[in-house]
Amino acid sequence: MNFRLVFKVTGKTLMVGAMAMLIPMLVSLLYQEDPTPFLITIPLMMVVGFLLSLLKSDDHFFTREGFFAVALIWLLMGAFGALPFYFSGYFPTYIDCFFESVSGFTTTGSSILTAVEPLPYGILFWRSFTHWLGGMGVLILTIALLPSLGARTLHLMKAESPGPVVSKLVPKSSQSSKILYGIYCALTAIQVICLRLAGMPWYDSIVHAFATAGTGGFSTKNLSIAAYGSPAIEIIITIFMLLFSVNFSLYFLILCGKVRQALRSDELRFFLAVVAISVVLITVNISPLYNTLGESIRHAAFQVGTVISTTGFASTDFNLWPEFSRVLLVLLMFIGACAGSTGGAIKCSRVLLLFKCIHREIRQVIHPRAVNVVKLDGKVMDENSLRSVHIFFAAYMLITLGATLLVSVDNYSFGTTFTAVVTCIGNIGPGLEMVGPMGNFSIFSGFSKLVLSMCMIIGRLEILPILVLFSGNAWKRS
Amino acid sequence: MNFRLVFKVTGKTLMVGAMAMLIPMLVSLLYQEDPTPFLITIPLMMVVGFLLSLLKSDDHFFTREGFFAVALIWLLMGAFGALPFYFSGYFPTYIDCFFESVSGFTTTGSSILTAVEPLPYGILFWRSFTHWLGGMGVLILTIALLPSLGARTLHLMKAESPGPVVSKLVPKSSQSSKILYGIYCALTAIQVICLRLAGMPWYDSIVHAFATAGTGGFSTKNLSIAAYGSPAIEIIITIFMLLFSVNFSLYFLILCGKVRQALRSDELRFFLAVVAISVVLITVNISPLYNTLGESIRHAAFQVGTVISTTGFASTDFNLWPEFSRVLLVLLMFIGACAGSTGGAIKCSRVLLLFKCIHREIRQVIHPRAVNVVKLDGKVMDENSLRSVHIFFAAYMLITLGATLLVSVDNYSFGTTFTAVVTCIGNIGPGLEMVGPMGNFSIFSGFSKLVLSMCMIIGRLEILPILVLFSGNAWKRS
Repeated sequence: MNFRLVFKVTGKTLMVGAMAMLIPMLVSLLYQEDPTPFLITIPLMMVVGFLLSLLKSDDHFFTREGFFAVALIWLLMGAFGALPFYFSGYFPTYIDCFFESVSGFTTTGSSILTAVEPLPYGILFWRSFTHWLGGMGVLILTIALLPSLGARTLHLMKAESPGPVVSKLVPKSSQSSKILYGIYCALTAIQVICLRLAGMPWYDSIVHAFATAGTGGFSTKNLSIAAYGSPAIEIIITIFMLLFSVNFSLYFLILCGKVRQALRSDELRFFLAVVAISVVLITVNISPLYNTLGESIRHAAFQVGTVISTTGFASTDFNLWPEFSRVLLVLLMFIGACAGSTGGAIKCSRVLLLFKCIHREIRQVIHPRAVNVVKLDGKVMDENSLRSVHIFFAAYMLITLGATLLVSVDNYSFGTTFTAVVTCIGNIGPGLEMVGPMGNFSIFSGFSKLVLSMCMIIGRLEILPILVLFSGNAWKRS
Repeated sequence: MNFRLVFKVTGKTLMVGAMAMLIPMLVSLLYQEDPTPFLITIPLMMVVGFLLSLLKSDDHFFTREGFFAVALIWLLMGAFGALPFYFSGYFPTYIDCFFESVSGFTTTGSSILTAVEPLPYGILFWRSFTHWLGGMGVLILTIALLPSLGARTLHLMKAESPGPVVSKLVPKSSQSSKILYGIYCALTAIQVICLRLAGMPWYDSIVHAFATAGTGGFSTKNLSIAAYGSPAIEIIITIFMLLFSVNFSLYFLILCGKVRQALRSDELRFFLAVVAISVVLITVNISPLYNTLGESIRHAAFQVGTVISTTGFASTDFNLWPEFSRVLLVLLMFIGACAGSTGGAIKCSRVLLLFKCIHREIRQVIHPRAVNVVKLDGKVMDENSLRSVHIFFAAYMLITLGATLLVSVDNYSFGTTFTAVVTCIGNIGPGLEMVGPMGNFSIFSGFSKLVLSMCMIIGRLEILPILVLFSGNAWKRS
């Protein structure tokens, strides 16, 4: 392992993170609040980052260095990002701040806050801004801003990008990063304007657009989106949650004029089919609870959108819905958004490939001599990619079950414990029962909060980087 | 698909099943009960079986025919096995009888009966005897009794035997079947004698030995093993539950004098390690609930044994234990017994291989050029076997989640719904909350009972046979 270069990249990313923190500090000043939390954190991050960036190293940088660096950077971003919360004095302990910061960067949106509204504008802005930074990736931002990292940036993108295939739009990684962030910024800006036109104040529009774009889900209201009581706002957010669940490379294809190719994506079709079927099933299931069919559809669509996009906003308390709708939402928590989007969980393409692999196995039994391949978007998938999908799924489920055991020491019901882990590893936000949309994670012990924070990072980085970081072998000098 | 031969094999197996039903009929007569339920069912099964066995066919019989036949036979055995329950008049509907019969043959042991004790001896004997028949396999019994099935019996054994590798002890399948049933009978007989010596009446000893041997879990007492209040009985049953969780080919090795080779089995070591760690953790967790450490250990060991062996007896209500112990037991429900035993669920060898595959993936990232293979018992596993393990795991988890959604229409809590499915697909018996050790499955609707019955058969036959049976392709004539 080339530790020097790993630390150098880490240092540069921390510096970019410190720069990003200037924006919430400006918001603090704008609202005439005390900027101290940022005034302490920014120089600290800058100095640590600068010192690390001074390290001299050769260019030896491969997949393992990429995975190691990404895991380390995300842990440190969580740790440093927690400091403004800590210094603000609104959070009980540092572990709570770490949980909230990790929940922000990983775009989970689970909160330990029992009341959001008393917090200062600057702190809440930072809280939502972490969603936006984490959604597309802090390293991808660093690559976009500092192309000369000295490392092979493809290995970094590969480790941070969600999905089985890295979204390499153009041959040069720094160009790809810029295009991705360009699309990201443009969509975010459009959403801000839509929300403002629907009657949301500017500040609220911006923070909620951050939370939607990153598929995070932190709100500045205790009741989340339900607080606005505006169908228009709910519909706008539903649409943008779904837009941010789509693979960004499809937007790139559309920008290049290849609209038909983009719409032919198997993953996109699977995603839209799952959304449509889920909305219909839930609408039927919850219709006795609401006055009009329109209202049922709106709530069903919002909740399906918020869960499958792994955002986690609430327009109503789905914890009060019949068990069928609740379980369906839990299943969507496992599926998640499309690969290459800002959403989390297992990802539609992986789930689709798992189904195709199972179908192949049946075909193999029935026609043992027939040629039997798995295709995606008309292309034959190679067996190594399929193996990675299987390994990912196995690790995801085993970690989910293992973490459920660890969190069960807090002695809450099975529904609470299990869905808390499912929602954290899938980067969604709310679960069922005590961690439902109107509940929060303050009930858990410090130990469980750390376990859940690790689940969020494991989910966001798609497992392997964290396993590499904690593997004894990785720490040996090569 | 060679339907004629499939039906012929099905017919012969039904005839063997009808013969087996003579034993509970004799018990009925012995206790001077009304034998009508058996007097109607036995001739019916015989006639249907005989007519099917008359079909003429060529010898074309491969994996797909094996899978198809096994799936069909198990569904029919469940359907015919339900008839004595139905004609006894003690069960509310035929669906309840089907659930109970499938729960018996698949060695699940989940019951819809709210009270067991009022039932006649003959009916309860049949109920427990289905465990014993299903534990080793009805087809393996048929192969042992009727070697000249006309079909390639290896494909039948492969489809019915649990675990990633078929236990082919000797080159000839019918010989293997006889050896397996020989070991099975001997161990069952030893357990009957042990239980009798510990003070259980003969009848109770026999039916509880059947339920232990098949890792089923039906008892003739409402309180299950707790009804006897005898630590000696609990300890005997704990030991035999663990003995029946071990791959039977290890006993064959021991009989051949290869004791050291048997004890070197990776799966056995993994199984024993999981049992030991679980007993220790649960003992610590539940010790405040019991008077002495010995009592805590005994209850912990019994419940760990009953769950990991997928038996499902109860010596105490673990539903009242702290959440940590409850969740740990749910995890054991996923792991299950060793391959080639009578136990169910995912199986230790598959779980072990999954861990090894994940470990390999990490090594691959860190040392991309090193030779990287997965070994079991010192032998390199080929990639096809590993792929089967992954596919099995994926299908198992996806079916578990999908069935949870279907059962959720009954609107019980998440813990009840989810663990009902987990315990049925794993062939264990009890779950948590309303389906805990002192609860039962009578609360579910007919629809959910059918879903859960299918889960049991899917779990017992290790998924693929049932998927093949329901695949449209399999029904096309070749």
